Amino acid sequence: MERFDGRRVDELRPVKITKDYLIHPEGSVLIEMGNTKVICTASIEDRVPPFLKGTGTGWITAEYSMLPRATAVRKIREAARGKLEGRTQEINRLIGRALRSVVDLDKLGEKTIWIDCDVIQADGGTRTASITGAFIALVDALKKMVNEGLIESLPVKRYVAAISVGIIDNTPVLDLCYEEDSKAKVDMNIVMSDNGEFIEIQGTGEESPFSREELNTLLAYGEKGIKKLINLQKEVLGIEL
Amino acid sequence: MERFDGRRVDELRPVKITKDYLIHPEGSVLIEMGNTKVICTASIEDRVPPFLKGTGTGWITAEYSMLPRATAVRKIREAARGKLEGRTQEINRLIGRALRSVVDLDKLGEKTIWIDCDVIQADGGTRTASITGAFIALVDALKKMVNEGLIESLPVKRYVAAISVGIIDNTPVLDLCYEEDSKAKVDMNIVMSDNGEFIEIQGTGEESPFSREELNTLLAYGEKGIKKLINLQKEVLGIEL
Amino acid sequence: MERFDGRRVDELRPVKITKDYLIHPEGSVLIEMGNTKVICTASIEDRVPPFLKGTGTGWITAEYSMLPRATAVRKIREAARGKLEGRTQEINRLIGRALRSVVDLDKLGEKTIWIDCDVIQADGGTRTASITGAFIALVDALKKMVNEGLIESLPVKRYVAAISVGIIDNTPVLDLCYEEDSKAKVDMNIVMSDNGEFIEIQGTGEESPFSREELNTLLAYGEKGIKKLINLQKEVLGIEL
Amino acid sequence: MERFDGRRVDELRPVKITKDYLIHPEGSVLIEMGNTKVICTASIEDRVPPFLKGTGTGWITAEYSMLPRATAVRKIREAARGKLEGRTQEINRLIGRALRSVVDLDKLGEKTIWIDCDVIQADGGTRTASITGAFIALVDALKKMVNEGLIESLPVKRYVAAISVGIIDNTPVLDLCYEEDSKAKVDMNIVMSDNGEFIEIQGTGEESPFSREELNTLLAYGEKGIKKLINLQKEVLGIEL
Amino acid sequence: MERFDGRRVDELRPVKITKDYLIHPEGSVLIEMGNTKVICTASIEDRVPPFLKGTGTGWITAEYSMLPRATAVRKIREAARGKLEGRTQEINRLIGRALRSVVDLDKLGEKTIWIDCDVIQADGGTRTASITGAFIALVDALKKMVNEGLIESLPVKRYVAAISVGIIDNTPVLDLCYEEDSKAKVDMNIVMSDNGEFIEIQGTGEESPFSREELNTLLAYGEKGIKKLINLQKEVLGIEL
Amino acid sequence: MERFDGRRVDELRPVKITKDYLIHPEGSVLIEMGNTKVICTASIEDRVPPFLKGTGTGWITAEYSMLPRATAVRKIREAARGKLEGRTQEINRLIGRALRSVVDLDKLGEKTIWIDCDVIQADGGTRTASITGAFIALVDALKKMVNEGLIESLPVKRYVAAISVGIIDNTPVLDLCYEEDSKAKVDMNIVMSDNGEFIEIQGTGEESPFSREELNTLLAYGEKGIKKLINLQKEVLGIEL
Repeated sequence: MERFDGRRVDELRPVKITKDYLIHPEGSVLIEMGNTKVICTASIEDRVPPFLKGTGTGWITAEYSMLPRATAVRKIREAARGKLEGRTQEINRLIGRALRSVVDLDKLGEKTIWIDCDVIQADGGTRTASITGAFIALVDALKKMVNEGLIESLPVKRYVAAISVGIIDNTPVLDLCYEEDSKAKVDMNIVMSDNGEFIEIQGTGEESPFSREELNTLLAYGEKGIKKLINLQKEVLGIEL
Repeated sequence: MERFDGRRVDELRPVKITKDYLIHPEGSVLIEMGNTKVICTASIEDRVPPFLKGTGTGWITAEYSMLPRATAVRKIREAARGKLEGRTQEINRLIGRALRSVVDLDKLGEKTIWIDCDVIQADGGTRTASITGAFIALVDALKKMVNEGLIESLPVKRYVAAISVGIIDNTPVLDLCYEEDSKAKVDMNIVMSDNGEFIEIQGTGEESPFSREELNTLLAYGEKGIKKLINLQKEVLGIEL
Repeated sequence: MERFDGRRVDELRPVKITKDYLIHPEGSVLIEMGNTKVICTASIEDRVPPFLKGTGTGWITAEYSMLPRATAVRKIREAARGKLEGRTQEINRLIGRALRSVVDLDKLGEKTIWIDCDVIQADGGTRTASITGAFIALVDALKKMVNEGLIESLPVKRYVAAISVGIIDNTPVLDLCYEEDSKAKVDMNIVMSDNGEFIEIQGTGEESPFSREELNTLLAYGEKGIKKLINLQKEVLGIEL
Repeated sequence: MERFDGRRVDELRPVKITKDYLIHPEGSVLIEMGNTKVICTASIEDRVPPFLKGTGTGWITAEYSMLPRATAVRKIREAARGKLEGRTQEINRLIGRALRSVVDLDKLGEKTIWIDCDVIQADGGTRTASITGAFIALVDALKKMVNEGLIESLPVKRYVAAISVGIIDNTPVLDLCYEEDSKAKVDMNIVMSDNGEFIEIQGTGEESPFSREELNTLLAYGEKGIKKLINLQKEVLGIEL
Repeated sequence: MERFDGRRVDELRPVKITKDYLIHPEGSVLIEMGNTKVICTASIEDRVPPFLKGTGTGWITAEYSMLPRATAVRKIREAARGKLEGRTQEINRLIGRALRSVVDLDKLGEKTIWIDCDVIQADGGTRTASITGAFIALVDALKKMVNEGLIESLPVKRYVAAISVGIIDNTPVLDLCYEEDSKAKVDMNIVMSDNGEFIEIQGTGEESPFSREELNTLLAYGEKGIKKLINLQKEVLGIEL
Repeated sequence: MERFDGRRVDELRPVKITKDYLIHPEGSVLIEMGNTKVICTASIEDRVPPFLKGTGTGWITAEYSMLPRATAVRKIREAARGKLEGRTQEINRLIGRALRSVVDLDKLGEKTIWIDCDVIQADGGTRTASITGAFIALVDALKKMVNEGLIESLPVKRYVAAISVGIIDNTPVLDLCYEEDSKAKVDMNIVMSDNGEFIEIQGTGEESPFSREELNTLLAYGEKGIKKLINLQKEVLGIEL
């Protein structure tokens, strides 16, 4: 199968990560995967949600959004509609779980890290790019906390990154762009850590179920892509965990 | 490992399905899995969402809810809060995808089937019980449409059922009750059809990532449980697809 | 006049009350009046609304809802619409007033009892069935509080039950089912205590006003029906007040 | 019993009705009952709610509101809170039912009459004053429709007015001001037409139930007050129905 | 140019101010400018918004609203729509800024003054009439605070009033009524203090831009009108600042 | 007075305009004024608001938003709060008026141009930068319509740009950054067209009123700044109007 943009089935799009993209946030990143562009920021807040008050434990929460014209057709703003779509809430929860899974929240103290992922331009894979980019913004914010003496050491246990895989015309492929995504019968998002373990698998074959063999190939492609992304994260951050 | 209620690691809780539980809906089921009890109904509406108008294609949409005191601690009603939680929206979307995946929507005509899953009592696994029960209510409603001459034949391609699996103290187990669910480090919901293919896999290891081997065991347990559930569905419905 | 279902004009439908219907709530009842089925629960919360803080006095508040397919035509969920209908708010307030009227809130201490009435199947008279059933769930929850030493004695002053009456084709009747209710020109809900006094009368003749004589008959039928319901409550609860 | 303001137990407060109070509405009235002041307007809209489209039948709907400082303590605006209180919705529905009960909606054609009752100053009895005043605004708007040839004749079947009664310290009284209302154990609103029939009775004895004898006295007082109000309406409108 | 109602281009409509219009509020005014009628009230609340807690400083906040039938065509209530229009929020903010600009909030102590401006009848210039009227209600409420010993002296620095100006058919005019306002190409609201300085200028030439010369004339007319209004305020209040 | 960043009192910050910043919108611009960065897009929609249906006339509407971490302190998303702030609605309306004032909406046909201004980084003057940048995106989108034959000629009458001015420590200054804005006693936004006429003036002296002389200086500075901005727009767009 020839892919839309000439890539091999297990090839990532060009990835570019710009650290310190904005002046205000404690951590900020512009991540570009092909034409998909997401601004990820990490903000430190000096309190925790009610269920953590008095526990000495911190929290990480994430909010994802798209500019109205990140997409080919303008989407109405959720602020104008007055409520969040189900899709947005799902993604918020996914990003939050992914990042919390690699941070030792006990060592964070009673702080909340707000992760904001704003999609400036969308071409497929925005939620997985958000996780990969937000991890860097998060680590940068935590480094700032260490530097300012707010915490003793970096409470990050592992690197984490995410990628999408899918099945198009019976062929499993890695890192789908929008054109591919809209033709895929199976769509899966994979979040993994740098020790090769799974943090999240979300695969759906609404239009056509998938077999155990297909699942195996998808997981293998995902693992390959995530390894490359984590290598890139390590280059950008320049620290081993 | 001894399970909380004496079950083997790959054993389902007692399942009971009561068809025609209510007098008004076109299809209605009370499904009980252990102490978890869900009323599932299917309602036929003579129109489709805007994006399907004029296409001749139908739609299936699902809404999930819990009675405030389905749980050990009373939960505030979403109607009183004025908005749906993210969790509810995720489950709504999951149930809808699962059921649409096995129905030939083209043959349905421009009708919407509304699936309502109301949890009367919760003890873990409410979303997967909802899918398993709702499938029966859905088929019953579609049979009624066939009987009334609204459609020529049953537009159902496959049986579908769902179950939860998870890892507690490093041990993978099938069909977690609430007590187990709250201790599980890995939590996964699996939706499969009767030909053994996956329709949806949603696994999360927020508190502890999981390896490929653990994933394999979880999928095997899930497959075993779903086979039993589909056999039960076949008994209750008495039709082969 | 022959009634739709063969009943005499002053005859109740068959009533069935199942106590301890659910495992989680402090009090729970399934009440069935003909085809009308309501799950009533009572939940104890360890705080009071702001206006009672520091007064030593407790509160009882009620929430009523219908499953979307409790009715012949599916009703959109209030949670999906994002707000409560006026009808729901009226019923919430009615149930709350009825139950508070027979409880000594001073003796309750600073607790709130949440009453939830969820209509599983509707066939007329759902709000009055809710009051009759909720009273039993409430007393059960209060008995639990006595048993746990949270309060010294049962702070319940009187039994309370409710019933609907109406005028169909100039004939007053007791306990209208939906078919009758939709034809009635006058519709009245009566709440009474076991000493034969009125707690609430809500009668409306929007489609045709009613005379003093008709009112007298309606009140007499209501009193007769409520006496039977209170006898049933006494049987189920097994305590005199 | 000596009443707070020297009135007899069955005596109304001074009533003043100013017709054509505003320049824009088709009908407008300022009604004052003691210190209670309500602006009532009637507006004609050239369409009906969806459930009446194509039926040739009209509709009357009512909206009640209080200025934030109509009361002794400022009340937050419902527009600022973003939703209507249950109390407001109850009153909206009550006013609508009362007015629809005396209008022949078939003869109205497919029009909606919007009734707005805005309480400028509150001192008890605002909902019943609203009904009494709104009836005059409504008839004025309908007369305008007759004059403009939109309808052939006045589709009003009867006069309608409303008043509150209650029991204070075991004494039934008519037309309670706020000071009395806050002390009353029983509170009842009565809506009657000019032929002495009941359109609505809403009585609640949340703080103390009431006997059949007390009910009889309350109804007698209510009837007396409403007769006076309808005489006043007839004077102001100058037409017999 | 002959004006619609015979006024000169720089002439105000007849102004009438009724102080102590309502019995409950600490300050209340009915201001009439031609057919425009606004009830302005000032209410004292014994707390401040979160950002002022503990600062010893007070706050003034304003809410503006129109009765649904203040206008020629009925407007849907914002409470019924569930949210405030942008126009309303703009006006709320404008009135608040105008009044805060002349009050020494430090001397107010930690109190909030709520200003409510409810338009009973609209004929252009409602927001500027609101400011002019609300100032009087505000001063009355503050005088009450002085009289009750809550503050030492009147913390009001200057008189403030407001008026609209605009350009109709190339002619600048003062104090536009609705008929004029709807024809104006340029629309400007001016808020000034009694020392002739500007507190707010909001001019918009959406339909036709305006030159510097036109601006000068508009400002001159505005200044003239506001001088007259402030003289009137002084008469009504009877105090010099 | 020495300015915070060494600028003269009537000097703009460095301005940078990047056209075609995004791939999807019909027009898109990144405008940078110092550290303030706004993405402005123009999207064509093939319908108009209800009040323009059937008139042959088009519409331009604008929506402004800030990324949560565009500011020094994270701001909660309006989508998460479920409603737009008053400030946002004011800015939406201001941008819309400014752009509509220079477009011949009759020649646009029944189309809506959606203008989206998303502030990526805020350092004062975001609403005026939005207008200046959005004008370019708008013209680009309209050029595309001309190229595609949807309209005959560019329906733009004039260039339009905007800038802020203010008074700090009694000194009027042009183009305030955030640090200056927070110290300014007078704050004014000016929108002008390329023929030197005013489209909008919004000046507020909440903390200290301003004299006629100060106003004159502010307007002169504003005019100077806007001339430079319009020259820049002309360079970028390369067309005369």
